[in-house]
Amino acid sequence: MNVLELARALIRRPSVTPDDAGCLEFIGERLAALGFTLERLDAGGVANLWARRGDDGPLFVFAGHVDVVPPGPEDRWRFPPFSATVADGRLYGRGAADMKGSLAAMVCAVESFLAEHPSPRGSIGFLLTSDEEGPAVHGTRHVVEILQARGLRFDYALVGEPTSEHALGDTIKNGRRGSLTGRLTVHGKQGHVAYPHLVDNPVHRLSPALAELVATEWDRGNEHFPPTSLQVTDLHAGVGATNVVPGECRMTFNFRFSSEQTPEGLQERVDAMLRRHGVPFSLAWELGGRPFLTPQGELITALSDSIEAACGIRPRLSTSGGTSDGRFIAAICPQIVEFGPVNATIHQIDESVALAELEPLAAAYRGVLERLLPPAGDDDARV
Amino acid sequence: MNVLELARALIRRPSVTPDDAGCLEFIGERLAALGFTLERLDAGGVANLWARRGDDGPLFVFAGHVDVVPPGPEDRWRFPPFSATVADGRLYGRGAADMKGSLAAMVCAVESFLAEHPSPRGSIGFLLTSDEEGPAVHGTRHVVEILQARGLRFDYALVGEPTSEHALGDTIKNGRRGSLTGRLTVHGKQGHVAYPHLVDNPVHRLSPALAELVATEWDRGNEHFPPTSLQVTDLHAGVGATNVVPGECRMTFNFRFSSEQTPEGLQERVDAMLRRHGVPFSLAWELGGRPFLTPQGELITALSDSIEAACGIRPRLSTSGGTSDGRFIAAICPQIVEFGPVNATIHQIDESVALAELEPLAAAYRGVLERLLPPAGDDDARV
Ligand SMILES: [Zn+2]
Ligand SMILES: [Zn+2]
Repeated sequence: MNVLELARALIRRPSVTPDDAGCLEFIGERLAALGFTLERLDAGGVANLWARRGDDGPLFVFAGHVDVVPPGPEDRWRFPPFSATVADGRLYGRGAADMKGSLAAMVCAVESFLAEHPSPRGSIGFLLTSDEEGPAVHGTRHVVEILQARGLRFDYALVGEPTSEHALGDTIKNGRRGSLTGRLTVHGKQGHVAYPHLVDNPVHRLSPALAELVATEWDRGNEHFPPTSLQVTDLHAGVGATNVVPGECRMTFNFRFSSEQTPEGLQERVDAMLRRHGVPFSLAWELGGRPFLTPQGELITALSDSIEAACGIRPRLSTSGGTSDGRFIAAICPQIVEFGPVNATIHQIDESVALAELEPLAAAYRGVLERLLPPAGDDDARV
Repeated sequence: MNVLELARALIRRPSVTPDDAGCLEFIGERLAALGFTLERLDAGGVANLWARRGDDGPLFVFAGHVDVVPPGPEDRWRFPPFSATVADGRLYGRGAADMKGSLAAMVCAVESFLAEHPSPRGSIGFLLTSDEEGPAVHGTRHVVEILQARGLRFDYALVGEPTSEHALGDTIKNGRRGSLTGRLTVHGKQGHVAYPHLVDNPVHRLSPALAELVATEWDRGNEHFPPTSLQVTDLHAGVGATNVVPGECRMTFNFRFSSEQTPEGLQERVDAMLRRHGVPFSLAWELGGRPFLTPQGELITALSDSIEAACGIRPRLSTSGGTSDGRFIAAICPQIVEFGPVNATIHQIDESVALAELEPLAAAYRGVLERLLPPAGDDDARV
């Protein structure tokens, strides 16, 4: 396998979200050569690829994104962000860790696996998008909706997000918290500060409810999830004049919620709190995703064993951190895990991945295929 | 007297703050013709006029501003804002009520008074500025500092602010609340909403202190002043991303405070409140003005009697409303009152003054001079 060369070829394509910069065609050619059937499911300016090899079950799917976040000021990078420079044992470039290194490892893993076992049990799929770092509306979500309409279900999905924290293999994600955003407008009456009886200050109206909102313990989490947390991300009132009471106050807040909560339940609690404090408000909600969880089972076992064999470390399970496209795949797949390289540099200047992570990552991915889609002969032998 | 024509001539000069647009020269010529000595005390792009007629005490000073607030969208005005159009018994234009009508009435009052009494007791002064509606740093405050450095004191000052509420003469101001602005920055730690243990949300830090701040009763006012009030005028945190916890939160708030408070006392209470709640903060204060109060005495009596004679109404005393340049004059003058036309339209589209207010306003101003600076002959006769 040569994961490094494939990763470099992908990084050199500057696929700043939602532009795939040719990455999907490039990967598609490699997959077609292996016997995959390709289907482009582009939508709304987003490039999507669905590829499958085999007709039988079980269906194992590698999922991921070729888009990257913008590099920021290029002159602050040690090397140009799309130059894919190797230095000091690391591969530098935007997307090196999130997640072109993983994509390269996935392709190489499948190439190596099929070279040895041309007729494995089941099918292998690839679900790739160019919009995971952006709005994520026309990407994985869209493809899943199409596949779902066809009645297709995945048996296993492995998302290549960079989940490792300190060493490759130390952490895999077997679920993610849900995300729910509230956009609150508190209505008041604008006027001059010198005439308090003629104004209705929306900041004053909000303040007791806000104090309760941020002091609330929503739950204590559970065995699988950390506690639900609320963060106010935006708060705006006033036009800059020190003698004018603002007419409204706008606040945006975001819940990251455990499986102890439902979006409906959280909305009801916030609504009731605001009403109890007599706040005159409008409130719009955006559901980023419901929580999902993959319980212990074949996929977690296969991945954990494979990581232990390839990396010499037994991964811990985690559901912390941000959302991922796993939330969409959960609709058609009972077992999803995420695993990829160390995430310390992602979305930053000088993003990079250790060269020493690349081949073990591919080996770990391949090991999952060996365990879940053993060639018929091996299968018989085992049973 | 022809107050209307003088008011129109002033309104036609578009003296949007701090531009005096020739108003001071125009008024100065009228005053010079009456024997006033003129002194321009311009500073920092602001035009100021100090004029005095007579060398003896008592010194009675008319004070006011020729600058106006911007007209806003001119096409929303019934008549062009600087056209000084007369219609339906009203004079329309920016500054008609605040306060070019008053300035015209003052000049005409003095012309009429001196025509009848060329050698009154005491002196008459005019303190006029082109920066009352703006920062008010280089205007009246600056002139008062210069006069104070010369050891000059006023005995009486009458500011032409539009104090009447429903009918000319119903209200005069014998004081004003103080104004104190706080600019608070709450320091936090920016980060991703999905990692609540790595962030320190400044909005959350502030919220319990904010709730207490806006719920506090600072005092209940007193015989002369309404209660001290606090209003949050600005509140800003966040950059618009729903997944980023802001690094800091900025809040501006303003006290209008009675004579029950001192700026130092208020600052101490706010400081203590923030510290008690453990808020990590920086706080800068701007003192807009201390409260001032003119007790019952010759000036209030003379003005009230004069208003009653000219307008048929006995004014009530008030200290409510915004600040005025009276706060600066208070440093060198024990008795200050403010009196002018009905303020219902000031700072608004279609600002206007009733024609029927103009001559009675001048008569009321003149009556104050008659009562406080009687010609020597009358004086003798009375004693
Ligand atoms: Zn990613
Ligand atoms: Zn004014």
